[in-house]
Amino acid sequence: MEKVISMVHGSGGQATGELIHEVFAAEFDNETLDLMEDSAVVKGGSRIAITTDSFVVTPVEFKGGDIGRLCVCGTVNDLLMRGAEPKYLTCGAILEEGASVDQLKRVIHSMAETAREAGVQIVAGDTKVIEGSGGIYINTTGVGTVPKDRDISSGNAEAGDVILVSGTMGDHHAAILSERMNIETDIQSDNAPLGEMVGNLLAAGIRVHTLRDVTRGGLATVLKELAEAAGKQFVLEEEAVPVTPKVRDFCGMLGLDPIYMGNEGKLAAIVDREDAENALEIIRHSRYGKDAAVIGRVEDGEPGRLVMKTGIGGERVLGVLQGEGLPRIC
Amino acid sequence: MEKVISMVHGSGGQATGELIHEVFAAEFDNETLDLMEDSAVVKGGSRIAITTDSFVVTPVEFKGGDIGRLCVCGTVNDLLMRGAEPKYLTCGAILEEGASVDQLKRVIHSMAETAREAGVQIVAGDTKVIEGSGGIYINTTGVGTVPKDRDISSGNAEAGDVILVSGTMGDHHAAILSERMNIETDIQSDNAPLGEMVGNLLAAGIRVHTLRDVTRGGLATVLKELAEAAGKQFVLEEEAVPVTPKVRDFCGMLGLDPIYMGNEGKLAAIVDREDAENALEIIRHSRYGKDAAVIGRVEDGEPGRLVMKTGIGGERVLGVLQGEGLPRIC
Repeated sequence: MEKVISMVHGSGGQATGELIHEVFAAEFDNETLDLMEDSAVVKGGSRIAITTDSFVVTPVEFKGGDIGRLCVCGTVNDLLMRGAEPKYLTCGAILEEGASVDQLKRVIHSMAETAREAGVQIVAGDTKVIEGSGGIYINTTGVGTVPKDRDISSGNAEAGDVILVSGTMGDHHAAILSERMNIETDIQSDNAPLGEMVGNLLAAGIRVHTLRDVTRGGLATVLKELAEAAGKQFVLEEEAVPVTPKVRDFCGMLGLDPIYMGNEGKLAAIVDREDAENALEIIRHSRYGKDAAVIGRVEDGEPGRLVMKTGIGGERVLGVLQGEGLPRIC
Repeated sequence: MEKVISMVHGSGGQATGELIHEVFAAEFDNETLDLMEDSAVVKGGSRIAITTDSFVVTPVEFKGGDIGRLCVCGTVNDLLMRGAEPKYLTCGAILEEGASVDQLKRVIHSMAETAREAGVQIVAGDTKVIEGSGGIYINTTGVGTVPKDRDISSGNAEAGDVILVSGTMGDHHAAILSERMNIETDIQSDNAPLGEMVGNLLAAGIRVHTLRDVTRGGLATVLKELAEAAGKQFVLEEEAVPVTPKVRDFCGMLGLDPIYMGNEGKLAAIVDREDAENALEIIRHSRYGKDAAVIGRVEDGEPGRLVMKTGIGGERVLGVLQGEGLPRIC
């Protein structure tokens, strides 16, 4: 019979201890994580970066990934976007009564594997159980170190800079949507940790002004926020934005726009114009970057304006995502 | 009409942005928190402590506190128990559809006030919305710095050491239970940040070997775990364990044992025998410590054994909490 989570797993007593040892301890074992302690004590540098994110995606397992891989990627990528080197993660699981223990084990295993790929240690954890219908939610908080002179920030874009994306838009969102709507497709989530890619850019001396992972709200929302933060006008070329034919067809069928759809393994980079070509090559030769493209530029223009040049010579002014988008995709 | 959370608040688009600005930004404003960034970058020391905890208490507001105060206290106290100086918190809110925005504002305000009392900054946040029935859950991750030579850890108890608690047992648990069971009582939660108390002990040079906040699972569970970590026998005096008459009556009525009930503003301290009297005085003169008591001692004896001497001269061997205890009290 399938083991399911029951309220007793949230008691803090023996059943909680058994669950933690059975599911989490073996997967996350490292020298800093000590299940008997209230906090992990780690060595840090002179500047640390901290980020937190809760993951509530349903289904928790989907084509190309699962909530365990997703939460590591999302959190590690958030650190990387500040120029931080990701070091430590925490794992706060909130389990609804009725959650499958086997499924929990699979996603926690996936979380551990992805943490190894990303080069981070999971140093503290917590598990709570709530009433509900079998849901698994995970909060991950990430801590990283930021080298002394590194300055990558959302307001740093300068007129003349070039805007790149590291790959095709909308894959994660389309994958989750197809699962939720029971639409037959083989679109895979792009959930991936981007440390190697960012590391390659920085090691090559690319003048990276801004990095942002293109998640909830999609490319348009993310770039609109960056244009506002920098007080610049961003101009995109619609035909340059990479989208796979499958995702394009899927979106066409449902009336969705890929530039408002979330990804979980794609970044937008704003770099010095002179470095743009090199940056593109470096990203294309990095893991998860083969479909990278230059998609636009930064202008003085109207501060905070995001405009897209369409294929037929028109212009479309873009705002942030309005309304629902799609719930629970990350 | 009361505003409630709907799925659109989880979209990552405009509604999410408005909710974050309306509810979180004003409360948590500080120089490190930047709502436009993916991570907060903070200055750190040479050793940092990290802890994570999710709070799923219902009701979210209760006599003496609320989930906002509770999550700060729980996380700050976890850092303090390692000898860390709490510095930074993250706030990951998971909101069920239908949650009251007014209530959310109240608990986030309480969170901000408690953070100020505890001397910590909230530097990163995230908000997600799930289906459900109006619940509010908060994950808080805490980061602190640990002075170079400080060594407070769960395995450090030595034979001859004295065990103290900083106040009465079971108050938080009884307060939550009475709310959940609609039992008329004026028992208040003890949720409180213990930074001043721990600071006073360390500033006075008390040889503190182990600190542990007495939360889920209660005093017996906590001390059993510490006895196992230290490989020592712990001996308690039942009559020395402080419990208020109201909590004692409440527990008597329901057949509960206060030593298995959670608190959220009480610690157990294991200190060098020679310092015990001073430690007791210092805790009693600290905020939230007036009912402190010496309750037992550490012996070589049988490793991991926790035994309580009863008033009538008997002995009761104690294990960790079995079964449910009570869900959702923290």
